[in-house]
Amino acid sequence: MSESLVFENSELTEMCRYVVSSGGKRLRPALCILSYFACGGKESDVPVSIGAAFEIVHSATLIHDDINDQGEIRRGRKTLHKEYTLTKAIVAGDCMFTVGFRLLSNVRSKIVDYIVEASGAMGAGEFVQKDNEHYSDVTEDDYMRIISGKTAKLFEACAKSGAYVADGTHEEVEALGEFAYNLGLAFQIIDDALDVTGDPRDMGKAIGTDLLEGKPTLPIIYAMQDKAHGSEIRELFEMPSIEHEDVVRALRLISSTDSIRRCMDKAREIAEKAVVFLDSVSESVYKDSLRSLAGFVVDRDR
Amino acid sequence: MSESLVFENSELTEMCRYVVSSGGKRLRPALCILSYFACGGKESDVPVSIGAAFEIVHSATLIHDDINDQGEIRRGRKTLHKEYTLTKAIVAGDCMFTVGFRLLSNVRSKIVDYIVEASGAMGAGEFVQKDNEHYSDVTEDDYMRIISGKTAKLFEACAKSGAYVADGTHEEVEALGEFAYNLGLAFQIIDDALDVTGDPRDMGKAIGTDLLEGKPTLPIIYAMQDKAHGSEIRELFEMPSIEHEDVVRALRLISSTDSIRRCMDKAREIAEKAVVFLDSVSESVYKDSLRSLAGFVVDRDR
Repeated sequence: MSESLVFENSELTEMCRYVVSSGGKRLRPALCILSYFACGGKESDVPVSIGAAFEIVHSATLIHDDINDQGEIRRGRKTLHKEYTLTKAIVAGDCMFTVGFRLLSNVRSKIVDYIVEASGAMGAGEFVQKDNEHYSDVTEDDYMRIISGKTAKLFEACAKSGAYVADGTHEEVEALGEFAYNLGLAFQIIDDALDVTGDPRDMGKAIGTDLLEGKPTLPIIYAMQDKAHGSEIRELFEMPSIEHEDVVRALRLISSTDSIRRCMDKAREIAEKAVVFLDSVSESVYKDSLRSLAGFVVDRDR
Repeated sequence: MSESLVFENSELTEMCRYVVSSGGKRLRPALCILSYFACGGKESDVPVSIGAAFEIVHSATLIHDDINDQGEIRRGRKTLHKEYTLTKAIVAGDCMFTVGFRLLSNVRSKIVDYIVEASGAMGAGEFVQKDNEHYSDVTEDDYMRIISGKTAKLFEACAKSGAYVADGTHEEVEALGEFAYNLGLAFQIIDDALDVTGDPRDMGKAIGTDLLEGKPTLPIIYAMQDKAHGSEIRELFEMPSIEHEDVVRALRLISSTDSIRRCMDKAREIAEKAVVFLDSVSESVYKDSLRSLAGFVVDRDR
């Protein structure tokens, strides 16, 4: 990734490095690379290059997301627009998009179709999320539409791209796509649950930010259905701006309901459904790793 | 353009249409299409598709620029982030980038290299501009670096792409690239002069905004060198925020110097230099049109 993000302007290069060097779980490249080998691909540089491209595009969306959410800390460091400026962060995000696309289009143009589809879905997901901010009548279906676009479609594109360039069969490409799509849903549900129950030191960022921003996440939706505390949580969620102490109170209230357990159950159910799609793929150590990935995604604490 | 900008989310589609339907001079597609035919290309759908892609990418950068500059009016309409929201405008810009890249990569991957180079340069230009805001010791060289990145490199990419896909010779591709690059410089100088002398009704936007934002443009740089009024203009330019009446005064002061005349001379000189590069291209009605374009660019009043 660092090798591809070199620009004539040294500050721009520095900013892109700042973003990609801050770590992250690298799930998207993992999906791409494992899907490639699971379909019998032999050359490691091809899927690594595509995986890097997806991670770069993903990082670009995180920069713009942090601007939109006024995020201050990401992966234990200041967000890019806080460390540099808003203007430079928007531009750096655009440049990272560009580089990601170049890497993808160097391989095969079909891959570009996958990412374009995912990008459109990401945009749509972001729109539905925005329209449901602080809106306490938001439904579980709305939420699934949001995370389908925001997360699952890009996971799907990563796996399909890996399988496609390995010359996987149509059935393999679709099956790995379905696997990754469902994995993305499960991943995002857990991510949103961790915003309620996570330890900020492990997470590298503050918790309770979804609530602070009025984001309609599943733990909040489930908690608003609670008989005892639902109406109080609804009230807090509807408030256009909320004090720190109210966030703490809301998190405690949500944790006192069965919301987090329901989220975990839902995520596990979806992850199990994901694994079934792997039946269409031959056994291999790569398929085993994909299966383990599904386990990791739901059992992680950060 | 409208045909390619269709998303599942209808508001996203509507926003993209809002942007591309607002007109503009379409100089970038013109450069691409004319360069294609000037090199003997025969199929109109190829250069039209590339030209559309360039215009879409250009429009995406305008959306993000307007956010960065807090612009309110563009082409006689509210800017996208004012009409919708900042969040949705950032996302819509990203989606337009994506579509632009897809259109380009569908043609030939070399074209993607051209636009990636231009995008890197656009980012760098934006950075130099930002670093010189309200900085009265900014030089003409700094300015030329800014507009090279912000405008000229994309003009160059448009012309080279058109020439390249028409299977123009290496010499033709380079010559049309140099022509367009210089045309871009001349275009931007005139654009910046019009921000001082233009009629807001013709321009579809307010004038004096560069001054308001402390942008280091050539008319301001030249005016700061004026013996009689230079120091007063420097003071106004250095002010981190400036009242409407001071903008009006500054514009009047700049117009009273020889700054605008010097800008016009500079733009004409560069446009003439641009036209010389056309010598390497065979005579045709398309080459004549390119030559006329150079005339239009410097003689326009909007």
